[in-house]
Amino acid sequence: MRHFVFTAALLAAGPCLADPLPSWNDGASKSAIIAFVESVTDPASPDYVTPADRIATFDNDGTLWAEQPLYFQFLFAFDRLRKLAAEDESILTSDVLRAANAGDLETVAAAGEAGLLEIQSVTHAGMTVDEFLAESRQWLATTQHPDTGKPLVTMTYQPMLELLSYLRDEDFTTWIVSGGGIDFIRSFADDTYGIPPWQVVGTEANTVYAVGEDGTPTLSKEGGVTFIDDKEGKPVGIMRHIGQRPIFAAGNSDGDFAMLEWTTAGDGARFGLIVHHTDAEREFAYDREGHVGVLDRGLDEAAGRGWVLVDMANDWRRVWPDGE
Amino acid sequence: MRHFVFTAALLAAGPCLADPLPSWNDGASKSAIIAFVESVTDPASPDYVTPADRIATFDNDGTLWAEQPLYFQFLFAFDRLRKLAAEDESILTSDVLRAANAGDLETVAAAGEAGLLEIQSVTHAGMTVDEFLAESRQWLATTQHPDTGKPLVTMTYQPMLELLSYLRDEDFTTWIVSGGGIDFIRSFADDTYGIPPWQVVGTEANTVYAVGEDGTPTLSKEGGVTFIDDKEGKPVGIMRHIGQRPIFAAGNSDGDFAMLEWTTAGDGARFGLIVHHTDAEREFAYDREGHVGVLDRGLDEAAGRGWVLVDMANDWRRVWPDGE
Ligand SMILES: [Ca+2]
Ligand SMILES: [Ca+2]
Repeated sequence: MRHFVFTAALLAAGPCLADPLPSWNDGASKSAIIAFVESVTDPASPDYVTPADRIATFDNDGTLWAEQPLYFQFLFAFDRLRKLAAEDESILTSDVLRAANAGDLETVAAAGEAGLLEIQSVTHAGMTVDEFLAESRQWLATTQHPDTGKPLVTMTYQPMLELLSYLRDEDFTTWIVSGGGIDFIRSFADDTYGIPPWQVVGTEANTVYAVGEDGTPTLSKEGGVTFIDDKEGKPVGIMRHIGQRPIFAAGNSDGDFAMLEWTTAGDGARFGLIVHHTDAEREFAYDREGHVGVLDRGLDEAAGRGWVLVDMANDWRRVWPDGE
Repeated sequence: MRHFVFTAALLAAGPCLADPLPSWNDGASKSAIIAFVESVTDPASPDYVTPADRIATFDNDGTLWAEQPLYFQFLFAFDRLRKLAAEDESILTSDVLRAANAGDLETVAAAGEAGLLEIQSVTHAGMTVDEFLAESRQWLATTQHPDTGKPLVTMTYQPMLELLSYLRDEDFTTWIVSGGGIDFIRSFADDTYGIPPWQVVGTEANTVYAVGEDGTPTLSKEGGVTFIDDKEGKPVGIMRHIGQRPIFAAGNSDGDFAMLEWTTAGDGARFGLIVHHTDAEREFAYDREGHVGVLDRGLDEAAGRGWVLVDMANDWRRVWPDGE
């Protein structure tokens, strides 16, 4: 009897309930997300999870915003390198630095991760964390995407913004767990995603505390990286910062494989999501090959592991917050 | 007129307002804390701070719970060393390890921080983070203090527990920033202080992600330390984990000097608090000398820097949750 009344009340309320994911087309991906969220938030469900344990982690590049033709943080590093080299050419101490300064992305790409880290280390060092944040914010506010001409901060994925809001409305905490630099991401995560600095996990630069002659303390980036939050580093970063295993993880490349593996190996209901870039018309289409966002093993194993592979072209009604 | 009505309402409500810090004696320390909290939480105050920026950081050993005769984590490490050595004596590969196993604390103390880190590395390695947390919880639940005979988890300071609650009631977030191991502190911080794992910053051990032959992923402590969250490391740890400067910091030793310096150098109203161990009768009396909790520079400079030096003997009506 109580059950009947409850169901009737829900049915009556039904037509008034707003769709929490309006930019997602109806289909298996959207249904799976909603079914998971309902199962872990319904106190009567065997899969119920208390709010404190509703941890959801998101990769950033290629998962929450675009990453082509290159991670935006590297576009920032290249712009900064050109600016620094214009003032003092002697900082260009290696082939990869000279190539980056000349805009020769092929040579830079050929140098792989080590080359990119060298550029990042040179361009992100020798300033305080506060100066870095201000520089990054200024750059993001004034820089357009090289292909689309749109402001970079508008190249987030509307369906993923809705997913973040939906999870938070259901008392999840949402975290970014990115291979990108923690300070770079913090410079826009609160404004762009509603994610405060302490819910950002990322690659960490060598940071040093010092007190100036006038007694003013500073934290400065001294060059070099102390922690790489990518691949097997992602579960390590999660346990360092969050201290418990997520129940939901979303990524787009094999750099997220370990995070999804760690997340979904936990007891109880778990959710793994991979954004598959299938939409050459509205965004970019890529997976098994390229400089960024390589998705190979994840593509092969997602189904077997019960991870939801989101097909951008078919699952998303709209890609961009300000457009189609 | 509006002001008058508001004041009258406050006066009328006055006798009903519970004292947020009943275990603190009336005096300068208690008044300063309450005046600070009121100034940053009153929207009409020039010092008003939005809740998202009300970050309060606390050292743990000697600030939230006792640290004599030795940090409790080292008592844990010694007990674990004896247990491991009883199974396999060959782990005792150095003088400091043999001394710790024999209970020769003087030799261990003479080896300084390096000796303690060696013991910690040997005893905290070779297990998963989950196993470590379980082991630590089990030990804390069954171990009494060597001098007082009280369960260790009851040796927290009641006035500081009240301060944590008071700040949280006023929409602060409360963080631990400790030189102790992050996993050790997380094993009891939620139950003991109401502080969730992601609000614990501490010294970090080398942690490795691996997948077993059966496909089960684990995070294991492999020995060695990757980050020491002490002295100049505390502001670094704060910016890694929290990503913004606190407005309130509490500590008890020179290991907290940089944290208080960094916190109180920020703009706007700031609060630095040092617990001064002056109470040989109810707790322990120590400051400028000893193995643990040395407070020397902080004692000299607190007044000049506007930090509140809490005199345990005089400022605290009660020390322990379960007693005097
Ligand atoms: Ca990615
Ligand atoms: Ca301490």
